[in-house]
Amino acid sequence: MAAAAHVDPVHYPSLMGALGTRLMNHYDVIVIGCGAGGYNTAIRAGQLGLSVACVERASNIGGTGIRTGCIPSRLLLHTSEIYDLASKGKNAALGIDCAPTLNLARMMAYKAATVEKMSKSIHKLLRKQGVTLIYGDALLAAAGHVIVRKAGGMQQILSGTSIVIATGSEPVPLPFAAFDRIRILDSADALSLDRVPRHLAIIGAGAVGVELGSIWQRLGSRITLIERCDRICHWLDRDVTATLERSLKRRGIDIRLSSDVVGLDKHSDSVSVLLRSTASGEIATIDADMVLVAIGRRPSTAGLDLASVGMQAGPEGVLPRQGPLAPVTPTKNSPGIWVVGDAATGPMLMSKAEEEAIACAERIAGLPGFVNYPSIPQVLRTSPEVAMIGKTEDELRGTGAAYRVGYYPLAANARAAICGTAEGFVKLLVDSGTNLIAGAHLIGPGAADLISQVAVAMEASMICEDFARICHPYPVWSEALRQAAMAAGGWMMHA
Amino acid sequence: MAAAAHVDPVHYPSLMGALGTRLMNHYDVIVIGCGAGGYNTAIRAGQLGLSVACVERASNIGGTGIRTGCIPSRLLLHTSEIYDLASKGKNAALGIDCAPTLNLARMMAYKAATVEKMSKSIHKLLRKQGVTLIYGDALLAAAGHVIVRKAGGMQQILSGTSIVIATGSEPVPLPFAAFDRIRILDSADALSLDRVPRHLAIIGAGAVGVELGSIWQRLGSRITLIERCDRICHWLDRDVTATLERSLKRRGIDIRLSSDVVGLDKHSDSVSVLLRSTASGEIATIDADMVLVAIGRRPSTAGLDLASVGMQAGPEGVLPRQGPLAPVTPTKNSPGIWVVGDAATGPMLMSKAEEEAIACAERIAGLPGFVNYPSIPQVLRTSPEVAMIGKTEDELRGTGAAYRVGYYPLAANARAAICGTAEGFVKLLVDSGTNLIAGAHLIGPGAADLISQVAVAMEASMICEDFARICHPYPVWSEALRQAAMAAGGWMMHA
Repeated sequence: MAAAAHVDPVHYPSLMGALGTRLMNHYDVIVIGCGAGGYNTAIRAGQLGLSVACVERASNIGGTGIRTGCIPSRLLLHTSEIYDLASKGKNAALGIDCAPTLNLARMMAYKAATVEKMSKSIHKLLRKQGVTLIYGDALLAAAGHVIVRKAGGMQQILSGTSIVIATGSEPVPLPFAAFDRIRILDSADALSLDRVPRHLAIIGAGAVGVELGSIWQRLGSRITLIERCDRICHWLDRDVTATLERSLKRRGIDIRLSSDVVGLDKHSDSVSVLLRSTASGEIATIDADMVLVAIGRRPSTAGLDLASVGMQAGPEGVLPRQGPLAPVTPTKNSPGIWVVGDAATGPMLMSKAEEEAIACAERIAGLPGFVNYPSIPQVLRTSPEVAMIGKTEDELRGTGAAYRVGYYPLAANARAAICGTAEGFVKLLVDSGTNLIAGAHLIGPGAADLISQVAVAMEASMICEDFARICHPYPVWSEALRQAAMAAGGWMMHA
Repeated sequence: MAAAAHVDPVHYPSLMGALGTRLMNHYDVIVIGCGAGGYNTAIRAGQLGLSVACVERASNIGGTGIRTGCIPSRLLLHTSEIYDLASKGKNAALGIDCAPTLNLARMMAYKAATVEKMSKSIHKLLRKQGVTLIYGDALLAAAGHVIVRKAGGMQQILSGTSIVIATGSEPVPLPFAAFDRIRILDSADALSLDRVPRHLAIIGAGAVGVELGSIWQRLGSRITLIERCDRICHWLDRDVTATLERSLKRRGIDIRLSSDVVGLDKHSDSVSVLLRSTASGEIATIDADMVLVAIGRRPSTAGLDLASVGMQAGPEGVLPRQGPLAPVTPTKNSPGIWVVGDAATGPMLMSKAEEEAIACAERIAGLPGFVNYPSIPQVLRTSPEVAMIGKTEDELRGTGAAYRVGYYPLAANARAAICGTAEGFVKLLVDSGTNLIAGAHLIGPGAADLISQVAVAMEASMICEDFARICHPYPVWSEALRQAAMAAGGWMMHA
């Protein structure tokens, strides 16, 4: 089913006449957006023998994840951590004396080169599956049609049996101050600075806030992290956020909780942030040279002309699915329109987008497809690293389910001893009735890699006792999972 | 069941008279040796309410694993890798300029401090379980009795319902040259050098050889690795050893395969190693300043007086179990004598010792206990790191079983792109008849931590298709496992 030229002037004369377009290509699937949701849908659909077109409005593919968010952030977290360990005397304790100097331009060049390399590898994957890549702004037109407005005013009409909206998301600005790229930054700006800020104020202590704060703190900035809630990353386990807050503070990050930002004053070379305490109502001012606004992201669904297909976006542009992955079908006789990734409801994670993409492509191909949302892990690449899967204690308490806690401090782990680290823990939550793992909360080195070991156990419905019996190499971080499982069973051996 | 003083001169008058001992303590379990096999047996037995004595002949507890082998080696692999990355320009590419200098004395002090810290933590764990720790040489006496010869000529007799031999192992010397600690080293010596050797020749390219070779290469030594077989670490998957050999060679390690060492000539400040090619018979000479003999280890069972309880060691001192973990019961009416860890048959791994220890204690306590030997992983802490579990392709071919290979190159992994690494792969072997994972072979960063994710899937009898459906965070190393599982199913998405 290769992409085939398909002209049907009988059925679409007015549309084609109006747009001055003579040739219309038909595809089994048209994917709008070529980020994680889009390229994974395209790849999987291509694997399943469907003809696919993918429309991207940016200058290159990869989306926020590859180009301006996840990968740049993880890369700078990686490089800044190496710099931090080398410069703060930790390596000296190991017998390695060095006084590193930061070459920020070279670090940013490494980042840019890595991003280009990754975009290139996705081009290759799409080519392998015969996906047609079209650059331009996509507009939903009549049922089953997408108009692509290209650079230079050219338009192209595509017809598709299925249309997948994978347009991703964009940072939400403050209601009273637009992004200016110089003093008031979004996450993409803050990942591309050409100098280390003297003082960076960050509004919002969610994943973006704590990760980008960690990067610039390690590279030498003073950081003030401002959060409306009474703790950072409020969706995490409370013990995890407590440990993470302590750790960030010890590294010198100033955390202002329960604080609303009520105003910003821009000056020639600085910016003042006005805070109001949600408890006392007291006003405080923070003077920084830049402000990163990291209060959230919203789906990029504006400009799609949703109304033309009888759809409408919810608050902040969210396109709700009708149940997990059910296609959004505007009218009875029109082809299915699907939504995957950040444009749809749910956590804005590359992994979630990827899962939805796979399931969406499989269902379009007539196969069963399913996303097990509770099994999607969440991670923070802070130091220590954070990862979670399943339920938190708050959620379990809310359900009234009886559960046991298996807690193991990394201070007792042999690999931690080797690395001279004592921070962090593994906490498993085990349903008392079934002995199944209900949730796992990790903070410590390698957490993001270890969490999938728990995911396998959860997906296999392995009882905690069996999980505690898994033989591990010695000494590794992952032993901590076993010890926590032993702890849940009352027989932790190594702490 | 706390340890109770127990004098029984009626039953053991001659023994007690002969040894001049007046007081005999009785324990449910006497463990001989306080390394990984011993201390884990003692901890688990204590948890199960048994009274336990643990006899250690060294000056402190922890065994080879904690004190002279695994931990010191892993620690120096960790520190030497940091040094290597900093000094070989890899960090410079990331924008971190530094010219580190090695302070070997401080590195060794860090090692020593970590070892003491870990021994101390095991002391604490033993105390928590009420284990009596006795220093001295243990001697099996009459059935159910152990004589401990202490420093200063004192003796103590212990009686035990169960006796567990956990005496560990020791390096095998060359038949024609004893260890002299200066020019002819064992692994413990080579982990305690006070200077970086100019040229270190290593006889035996097994786990010890390649790991210690990696340490000293990174710290500045010229390394020649000599191996009798036609490849290094011959028990590993052939693709893994090929990649590892290439990698070690690229780092400058000279590997001499199919070479027998037929002689050593010690000089005042160097040593000559005489090699004979097993193929051509040609003789070559290597001049090094030290030689590390890493041709294997043998159980430390000499001096136990095995004959007194009707036991005898096999070749190289091995004490065979009668089936997995069956107690060695010398005579019909004598108490059970168990063997765990390196003293017993099987791979000499801390993880294997730990598994046997747990199962042994549980069976002594009357519970079911079991070691699933095929699920014990093996790892090398080289760069790139190596880990395996289950069967190799050679083994599968030997059984005639039909299998599929899921191969994923790390060059396609996003985390690898971030770290600027392209070396390594994940290779899953999947039984074609059952779709179960039969083996996993990993080479690349984090392999030792990732292998347990495969272990969970194997122990849960999760089919490969389900393993390919596990949602992972992005970007992590562990995604490589998923992609390899997809590859085994014919739908690898990211390569």
